[in-house]
Amino acid sequence: MSELRQNFATKEWVVIATERARRPEEMAHHRERKPLASFVASCPFCPGNEKLTPPEVLRVPASLDVPWHARVFPNKFAALSRDVQPTRSVHRSRRAVNGFGVHDVIVETPDHAQVLALMPDSYVAEILRIYKTRYDELSLDPRVALVTIFKNHGIDAGTSLEHPHSQMIATPVTSVQVRERFQTALRHFDDYGECMFCQMIEEELEEQTRIVMVSEHFVAMELYASPAPFFTHIYPRRHMASFGDVSAAEMNDLARMLRSMLAKLYHGLADPDFNFTIRSAPAESVGVKYFHWYLSVIPRLTRVAGFELGSGMFINTVLPEAAAEFLRKVDVESVRNGAAAATR
Amino acid sequence: MSELRQNFATKEWVVIATERARRPEEMAHHRERKPLASFVASCPFCPGNEKLTPPEVLRVPASLDVPWHARVFPNKFAALSRDVQPTRSVHRSRRAVNGFGVHDVIVETPDHAQVLALMPDSYVAEILRIYKTRYDELSLDPRVALVTIFKNHGIDAGTSLEHPHSQMIATPVTSVQVRERFQTALRHFDDYGECMFCQMIEEELEEQTRIVMVSEHFVAMELYASPAPFFTHIYPRRHMASFGDVSAAEMNDLARMLRSMLAKLYHGLADPDFNFTIRSAPAESVGVKYFHWYLSVIPRLTRVAGFELGSGMFINTVLPEAAAEFLRKVDVESVRNGAAAATR
Repeated sequence: MSELRQNFATKEWVVIATERARRPEEMAHHRERKPLASFVASCPFCPGNEKLTPPEVLRVPASLDVPWHARVFPNKFAALSRDVQPTRSVHRSRRAVNGFGVHDVIVETPDHAQVLALMPDSYVAEILRIYKTRYDELSLDPRVALVTIFKNHGIDAGTSLEHPHSQMIATPVTSVQVRERFQTALRHFDDYGECMFCQMIEEELEEQTRIVMVSEHFVAMELYASPAPFFTHIYPRRHMASFGDVSAAEMNDLARMLRSMLAKLYHGLADPDFNFTIRSAPAESVGVKYFHWYLSVIPRLTRVAGFELGSGMFINTVLPEAAAEFLRKVDVESVRNGAAAATR
Repeated sequence: MSELRQNFATKEWVVIATERARRPEEMAHHRERKPLASFVASCPFCPGNEKLTPPEVLRVPASLDVPWHARVFPNKFAALSRDVQPTRSVHRSRRAVNGFGVHDVIVETPDHAQVLALMPDSYVAEILRIYKTRYDELSLDPRVALVTIFKNHGIDAGTSLEHPHSQMIATPVTSVQVRERFQTALRHFDDYGECMFCQMIEEELEEQTRIVMVSEHFVAMELYASPAPFFTHIYPRRHMASFGDVSAAEMNDLARMLRSMLAKLYHGLADPDFNFTIRSAPAESVGVKYFHWYLSVIPRLTRVAGFELGSGMFINTVLPEAAAEFLRKVDVESVRNGAAAATR
């Protein structure tokens, strides 16, 4: 029988539709991706075209084999502008803030055809360190309320440029969704004297069935009330409210786990379109005891339809426990070592 | 300059990205839709195949030219089952309810190639009356907490069968999203002694710029903080918490407006994929003074990307005022009368 499951952290309900359950491997679309060239002359993110982008904010410099490892610059078509003071206006039911905000693009590699899933861990760590550097800078700006870090991979994930990149948007307001989740976490803390995420992570580590990977500092798991197939959270095992609290050693560990997780999707589900995003405490709440940051990896294998839009509930046709088992079995390390051996 | 706007009813923030604004007419995809046959022998919803569906719950009977006008039956691949008692379980952080629920399919016409946008108003009214009959029945079931009525049109809107149909799902729980919106509306009522939707509708009717259509009983408008291009709400002008409160005269008026709104999308935006859904008070809250039901029409012209998933905020690249002006100008009545004249 199907089951409605409640997300412990958000209180959101999900229909786990086991009656029409699909095996995890059925979710691989195996669609044709056109092979990409490593360099595309018309791509504004390819090396040599640096003048086509706005001036750089940050760069991971060149090494022997590449002109640069990564570049950060303002989005040329930014949704928001950093050159204004946020000003609130209230006219009866119409409330607005002018378009203050920061919208960065992080080009992850000079190679147009590269993907995070296949990069060396050390390169992924460089990108995460860029996230943190910019996250820390933006969080200190008193005009900023929330910093959202995200990546769109593939058309169904909303990307418009195929060259590997991620983005970061700082807004002068916090969303109602973030606010409500904070309230829920705060109520739990006041009720039990502990972080609800820490409790949930401990229980999941005991239970094991939804765990995909565990390392010294992080754990990757399917949610008990997962809203979509292979929706995966990576949590720090130590309590941390903000992504800005990650230590250098933890960052290398996170890079290994993120790369490995993306490689499991790449090899196990035929390079699906996906988003990932970092959910961290709003700037004013860094250091709180009741919230726990995490990274969400969201493969875009299904469509949101009218029920989800109308009710705010989701229907998931893959059991989270089956998804976790499937992902555990995708052996990315031997693929990786095999490929490395083959090129030796 | 871009602007962040706050939805008065939900408090959700939307980035109205006027810096990269697109003209409304640019949003018409004009993609090739393969022409559909009026009858498809393998379609379980086509006439003659009635035995391929579960037994009917309801039918709008035959008239001279058709075997039946509409049929309602349980979804063959229902996410939930009506034959159980909802039972809650709580094991530490894992909370669930067994899969009680009702999942109906409403086949809207025997004609496989028909669309609501081009049907006679009286046929659309029949479908809305079916919604209400089933909505009323399901709302009385003490096991039901929330009834969601919705339609998926096209692949991007999540449909899997092309024969025109809508669906209705009754769940034993209310979503956190519906709960929070109710709380917000209740707080407004306690603060001002009035329905926040009634206030907003009155203001929008004065302001005019976001109104698409007004009739005796209903108003169709773009939201001030619209999360996506052409996202349109149809509100009853009289205060009503529940869709079940609609009178017979109002239902005919609603059918005309819904059909006309869908025709504006069909002709103005080249038959886009869309969802619509009815947001009504949860079953236990029928008759409250602080909530106002409405019908959302949601064209699926853009993709939700990482920013939206990570922040809970949306970026809309079409000004709601421009979308409203565009939709006002799509003259569906002369197209309709012209077509009628041409076939005379």
